[in-house]
Amino acid sequence: AQAIGASPSEIYFTSGGTESDNWAIEGLAAAFPEKRHLLVSSIEHPALLSSVERLRSRGYEITYLSADEAGFVSPEEVAKALREDTLLVSVMLANNEVGTIQPLKEIARESHRFGALVHTDAVQAVGSIPVDVRDLDVDLLSLSSHKFYGPKGAGVLYVKKGTRIKGFMLGGEQERSLRGGTYNVPAIVGMGRAIEIAVSDMEKNVEYVTQLKYRFFRRVFDEIEYVVWNGGEPSLPGTVNFSFLGVKNADLLSALDQAGVEASSGSACSSGSVEPSHVLRAMGLSKEILSSALRFSFGRENTPEDVDRAVDLLKIILARLRKDEDLFLPKKTKKYDL
Amino acid sequence: AQAIGASPSEIYFTSGGTESDNWAIEGLAAAFPEKRHLLVSSIEHPALLSSVERLRSRGYEITYLSADEAGFVSPEEVAKALREDTLLVSVMLANNEVGTIQPLKEIARESHRFGALVHTDAVQAVGSIPVDVRDLDVDLLSLSSHKFYGPKGAGVLYVKKGTRIKGFMLGGEQERSLRGGTYNVPAIVGMGRAIEIAVSDMEKNVEYVTQLKYRFFRRVFDEIEYVVWNGGEPSLPGTVNFSFLGVKNADLLSALDQAGVEASSGSACSSGSVEPSHVLRAMGLSKEILSSALRFSFGRENTPEDVDRAVDLLKIILARLRKDEDLFLPKKTKKYDL
Repeated sequence: AQAIGASPSEIYFTSGGTESDNWAIEGLAAAFPEKRHLLVSSIEHPALLSSVERLRSRGYEITYLSADEAGFVSPEEVAKALREDTLLVSVMLANNEVGTIQPLKEIARESHRFGALVHTDAVQAVGSIPVDVRDLDVDLLSLSSHKFYGPKGAGVLYVKKGTRIKGFMLGGEQERSLRGGTYNVPAIVGMGRAIEIAVSDMEKNVEYVTQLKYRFFRRVFDEIEYVVWNGGEPSLPGTVNFSFLGVKNADLLSALDQAGVEASSGSACSSGSVEPSHVLRAMGLSKEILSSALRFSFGRENTPEDVDRAVDLLKIILARLRKDEDLFLPKKTKKYDL
Repeated sequence: AQAIGASPSEIYFTSGGTESDNWAIEGLAAAFPEKRHLLVSSIEHPALLSSVERLRSRGYEITYLSADEAGFVSPEEVAKALREDTLLVSVMLANNEVGTIQPLKEIARESHRFGALVHTDAVQAVGSIPVDVRDLDVDLLSLSSHKFYGPKGAGVLYVKKGTRIKGFMLGGEQERSLRGGTYNVPAIVGMGRAIEIAVSDMEKNVEYVTQLKYRFFRRVFDEIEYVVWNGGEPSLPGTVNFSFLGVKNADLLSALDQAGVEASSGSACSSGSVEPSHVLRAMGLSKEILSSALRFSFGRENTPEDVDRAVDLLKIILARLRKDEDLFLPKKTKKYDL
């Protein structure tokens, strides 16, 4: 509770971020049966998108908010899309694939003016950047333990005091009768300790991880050609998404993996999928950029040497993969200015 | 999969028994929207009961099957209650409060004759007694890791190959796109190892724990007056429920706790509740029996000395608690014959 500026009675333990997102959507829908419209960004996590699609199959109307080329949702678009019967506006605090931090405070302000509730999937943000539910003025917030080095199998749904909501995982009288199931005490205790550590070292970690990202950023742009940065600032300290034009991200990913560098195309939830990331598609990027996009993540346990090794290997692998390709592309199609 | 006679492709990992029960109900309802009737025993776990009540609030019809005084559901009653539009019959394999093992094979046979699917909450049974999904001929089965000494936070929903079902916890493409969320790998691995141990020592454990229960049984009946056994055979090796007439179970429970003996009134899911157990009420027991009922559970780590100590303490505590009570009750209102 302390870590996000909430009070303990507003914290509900779940099995993780996916359950928290599912609960937020289903729990509000059940509590406000008369409100049948939801406003959701198109770059949400699949847990959120699937949950609203389930409502749509039950007759709800969903408006998807677009994201711009840098990955931002616009408060003005929210304001225009709000209706009398809008139950909920759900926009993630920070995107897991490109790292952009949304103007959530402004989005919440617009939403509340229309009497809509505000939920944010803060799974990627909590533990990485300071998060305060009162400052953001959100009504519900999802977080997940393992995203801040806590154990898997634990998460939280923050529900602002006084917010009407029904349960999703029904059973016993745990969590003020709103969430049934035996408490996963070891995971919950671990989550508590993990967020304590994350929050106490927050400033130092943000600074350290940001410097790692910038180091990566500078070297990639200075030493590698045909690179596009997918994202914008403000963004998470440790997340950056690049397209290395002229190569397929799957090829690059597997070559990096063999060399001991773990990157990601899309999100873990869609690994195994051959479809390009729904987030990058929603940002309106070209096919060329989509098919060559790769996400790199840095954490407090990484070192500048890790960054240098990743860039060195990237250069070698790209030179090999691009050898047989004809590249008629402008160099560095997008400028950076950090 | 091996432990319950299933094939690996029929196993879906969940966060625990509560989720498995919720999923079974919601997943089938979503997959068969035209079937609007469910048949459920009245001694089910709250996770199951709450899930069907949620359907009822959406217009479904629920028929609750009674339990007899010993805690058994009757296949004949199932046969009579089945209808053309019965989606599902859900009867738990073994009850968590009184231990009775249901005639599930017969219930499944009747149900399938009417084209209804069969789900069983086997959370209390798996790991304690041999369970084989093909032999029972159930279509869905819930189990929970921590019930067989595995870690908390993991469970399984068994779904028979070819059974139509929708997801409940929606998100990524995990579990053949039917259950989203990051895998809780440590808990899943632990659950696998725990069931391996439970199954490999099954025969020995069943014999050992049954002997502990019988020892407790004999001493309680031989040495303590005004005792009623709530339950019947067949039952779980390690579960027994007694009413010690003339005392309130809460008083007895707290005195035993202080003496280092952990028993239970009702189930953990309703601890803190002042209502008598819904299971014992469904068995039609008198108010006197309800208010003095206590469950004792034995496991493979208990010893005959534990049993003796529990009985010795019971005698001392009962003598004290009953001192000021006027007991006009027949001795041993229910015979036992093991």
